[in-house]
Amino acid sequence: MTYCVGLKLDAGLVLMADTRTNAGVDNVSVFPKLFDWSAPGERFLSIMTAGNLATTQAVVSLIGEAAAGADAARSVMAAPTMFQAARLVGELLREEIGRQGQVSAAGDAPFSSTLILAGQIVGQEPALFLIYPEGNFIECCAETPFFQIGETKYGRPIITRVFDPAMSFDDAVKLLFVSFDSTMKTNLSVGMPLDLLVYRRNGLEPALRTRIDDAHEGYAAIASGWGDAIRTAFHALPQAGMLPD
Amino acid sequence: MTYCVGLKLDAGLVLMADTRTNAGVDNVSVFPKLFDWSAPGERFLSIMTAGNLATTQAVVSLIGEAAAGADAARSVMAAPTMFQAARLVGELLREEIGRQGQVSAAGDAPFSSTLILAGQIVGQEPALFLIYPEGNFIECCAETPFFQIGETKYGRPIITRVFDPAMSFDDAVKLLFVSFDSTMKTNLSVGMPLDLLVYRRNGLEPALRTRIDDAHEGYAAIASGWGDAIRTAFHALPQAGMLPD
Repeated sequence: MTYCVGLKLDAGLVLMADTRTNAGVDNVSVFPKLFDWSAPGERFLSIMTAGNLATTQAVVSLIGEAAAGADAARSVMAAPTMFQAARLVGELLREEIGRQGQVSAAGDAPFSSTLILAGQIVGQEPALFLIYPEGNFIECCAETPFFQIGETKYGRPIITRVFDPAMSFDDAVKLLFVSFDSTMKTNLSVGMPLDLLVYRRNGLEPALRTRIDDAHEGYAAIASGWGDAIRTAFHALPQAGMLPD
Repeated sequence: MTYCVGLKLDAGLVLMADTRTNAGVDNVSVFPKLFDWSAPGERFLSIMTAGNLATTQAVVSLIGEAAAGADAARSVMAAPTMFQAARLVGELLREEIGRQGQVSAAGDAPFSSTLILAGQIVGQEPALFLIYPEGNFIECCAETPFFQIGETKYGRPIITRVFDPAMSFDDAVKLLFVSFDSTMKTNLSVGMPLDLLVYRRNGLEPALRTRIDDAHEGYAAIASGWGDAIRTAFHALPQAGMLPD
């Protein structure tokens, strides 16, 4: 499994991805699932991946090769808009899955994959897309300014309750720490280390790109503090009043 | 979908089930998923159901008919232990699914179903079981003193962080209110009203059996209070310290 989240803040974008891959619980590895390309001052793009590792690595390699000049017509670094960049990535993804002869309308083929694409082109707005295995995609909106892929459920309630696009980068990272901690505590197939990318609006290159492991002080403080904080919050709630003990 | 939770407390058992069934989002109904049978002073049994409604209704009808004397040899009300009662229920479930010719080792057959069985027989300990579509089952233990069926993920982190078998019935109900609220806020196929059953250890009949709807004051106070409480807890955590704004 995998867990990746992209948040679209007023101030920019915050992306976080775990790095655990597994082919059965007895075959666990660390692979990156967060990738980025920048032409500083002109554009910044990032992709997070969930699904079949061979498929996602192939798509990322094709994007990288095209961006390096092998196929300029299909390079995300030459796309005139983020929408056109999302179309290109969607086409590469669909083609790669189709190459395995396993395309399924339900998106549950064994070689399937789902992506989050984030970025900004100079003079345009930052954008965040969720790209499906079929190659089509949706863009986030003011009402739902974030996307998750992979094991999305355990970490979703805290995001829907706390996320506010006006929040600071540091609060957004803290929120993702809590969301990832809740997920990793319940699903062993999501695991450390975590890749974090913070993109400041109009920065046109990452403001921060770092890897967080178990020893990371900020993460450890939040992960251990959250258990106590949530218990305190729980006990401060009014009683259900259903039955005297 | 469905969401049911059974908690095994030191003081007894707390069971909660939603009542929404759906065959597509355009075909939503209310059906009970929590059932109980008592021989006051001798035994108390309760079942919660997730999965195909025809299957679960058939199993509950078979249990009810057998308990009423139609098939005394297979009656949970005559089983000498809760373990034997779980075997009987597992057999009925497997047979009913098999009757559709759709038994699957993966448990994902369209007529499949999963059950939680809870109860106590006089002179024995209260017990809580999770019964699989294949008819086999597991019993909860001190390390994992609860079971969930249906849409289990959204509401799980709060249970794993807060649940303590030593907690009061009222705290347990409050915890389930929070867990169900998190689930219903994110999955429309889990919905009001909720059925609640509280069983006091050695009571040998329900201490409380009630239905909770949107207008329920205790539920509303907790559901609305939890959003604020969790945001307060979040902001009281130390900062991630990753990036000054």
